[in-house]
Amino acid sequence: MSKKGILIVVSGFSGSGKGTLMKELLRRHGENYALSISATTRRPRKGEVHGREYFFMTTEEFEKKIAKEELIEYAKYVENYYGTPRDYVEKQLDAGRDVILEIEIQGALKVKEAFPETLLLFVTPPDADELKKRLVGRGTETMEVIECRMKRAAQEAAGMDKYDYLVVNDELGRCAEEMHAIIQAEHSRSFRNVEFIQGIKEELNRSLKGES
Amino acid sequence: MSKKGILIVVSGFSGSGKGTLMKELLRRHGENYALSISATTRRPRKGEVHGREYFFMTTEEFEKKIAKEELIEYAKYVENYYGTPRDYVEKQLDAGRDVILEIEIQGALKVKEAFPETLLLFVTPPDADELKKRLVGRGTETMEVIECRMKRAAQEAAGMDKYDYLVVNDELGRCAEEMHAIIQAEHSRSFRNVEFIQGIKEELNRSLKGES
Repeated sequence: MSKKGILIVVSGFSGSGKGTLMKELLRRHGENYALSISATTRRPRKGEVHGREYFFMTTEEFEKKIAKEELIEYAKYVENYYGTPRDYVEKQLDAGRDVILEIEIQGALKVKEAFPETLLLFVTPPDADELKKRLVGRGTETMEVIECRMKRAAQEAAGMDKYDYLVVNDELGRCAEEMHAIIQAEHSRSFRNVEFIQGIKEELNRSLKGES
Repeated sequence: MSKKGILIVVSGFSGSGKGTLMKELLRRHGENYALSISATTRRPRKGEVHGREYFFMTTEEFEKKIAKEELIEYAKYVENYYGTPRDYVEKQLDAGRDVILEIEIQGALKVKEAFPETLLLFVTPPDADELKKRLVGRGTETMEVIECRMKRAAQEAAGMDKYDYLVVNDELGRCAEEMHAIIQAEHSRSFRNVEFIQGIKEELNRSLKGES
């Protein structure tokens, strides 16, 4: 079915292993997907490469991109901008590759507003107990750190039902395959195949009129 | 994810091979699915078995079922009633099996209205040319028959975009697996997992309040 690329946003609880999961998905099905690279004004950390982890730029460059609407979404954290460059995403979609953005819920909802056909996936541990275990960690964190994580998780959970699918991250390989299957199935959604439906209708109408 | 059964309606162009496809799906993944059996007031044809092809009943019995709301949907064709008994469907759904109804579009939309979580699948040939070929047949039919088929197909096509997914019936085995993958992915939809989401939210709220 639809060979047009799908824009996919992946969010999830902090520490849900989204990053590892995305790497596994690309390792297994890299020919289908492109991972979007964010632009940021924060300074590169040791080992980070421009165009791999991020597109690093100055505040002036970033604000020019905002003004020219060259970002699909952006946000400011602390002192730094983070955003998704439009040109890379559109090029990949046109080439028929599904593009994955790994962003948090505020950004996800902005993208969905701008592109209603965006597919929203939420990565979650298999149950509440497991989530708590991951948040509490190995008992080495202070109560403050744990409480901060809990609060953030509660905020993240509040938006879960805005996502199209939940992806349970239990076993890495199984989870990557499930995510792949969900995305592939999405290509068969009727609203992603309006041209196909139009073609069938037109052919039938032509035939009924006795043309061709 | 969601282990509750999904109610699935499969429709498609007459002659799209839906029946064969359903049999193949059940042959491959029978443990997941139950095929709903319709009730009808028409007389059994040779070889048809009560409770296998149809539940055969009198008009009086059928109308009693209508009055008691024991049918999910029903329609009258020519002189005969056809309908979907509710009890069998609900029993299977409760047991966690996905139930498949093979009905046409009017019935499909009625079911969706009564059960908004119903999954609507439309089986279609790979393209308009192939559809035309199947409608025209082997050149042995009269123009009248072909025209009648075309008109019916045009009516069917008019409702295609009301369905959730299109399933392209090109190669039988591939198509059965695609249908299976689509249905399995549907189990991960957020709106089919409200209890799971609720559980996560409650656990986080309890933890934040310092309850265990």
